[in-house]
Amino acid sequence: MNWITTIGLLAAICTTMAFLPQAIKIIKTKHTKDLSLNMYLVLVIGVILWLTYGILIQDLPLIIANGITLMFTSTILTLKIKYK
Amino acid sequence: MNWITTIGLLAAICTTMAFLPQAIKIIKTKHTKDLSLNMYLVLVIGVILWLTYGILIQDLPLIIANGITLMFTSTILTLKIKYK
Repeated sequence: MNWITTIGLLAAICTTMAFLPQAIKIIKTKHTKDLSLNMYLVLVIGVILWLTYGILIQDLPLIIANGITLMFTSTILTLKIKYK
Repeated sequence: MNWITTIGLLAAICTTMAFLPQAIKIIKTKHTKDLSLNMYLVLVIGVILWLTYGILIQDLPLIIANGITLMFTSTILTLKIKYK
């Protein structure tokens, strides 16, 4: 694996895992007032579309990264609706 | 442009524009308590890495999408630090 691929992989890990601390924060505090509902609605739709795109072009990194991101962002969206 | 490319394009538009309503919400309310600082730190690093990767492999859609996403997410991060 060359260093350019490594940068792409690190990028994917960061933008995928970034949502985990937000999900944990909400589970701990049960507060979501400052979070934008529209952001998470559009984001979850976007991630579902990326996952669909990944499946259609049979790209495993796209499928894995967006599968994990969907898990985190849909959890945040569900908690936002629950605790609003 | 075939329908699979259209799905990829719609995905990119959604995951890029999703952060705009959050930025607007913070500008209006000046409240960021419920937002995770770690989420936006890791996300901004990830988007910078994606942008770097896009420049290195000379992929214009990656550069444009991540350039716009960086603008929105770094604004949210700055406001989170400012109003914490």
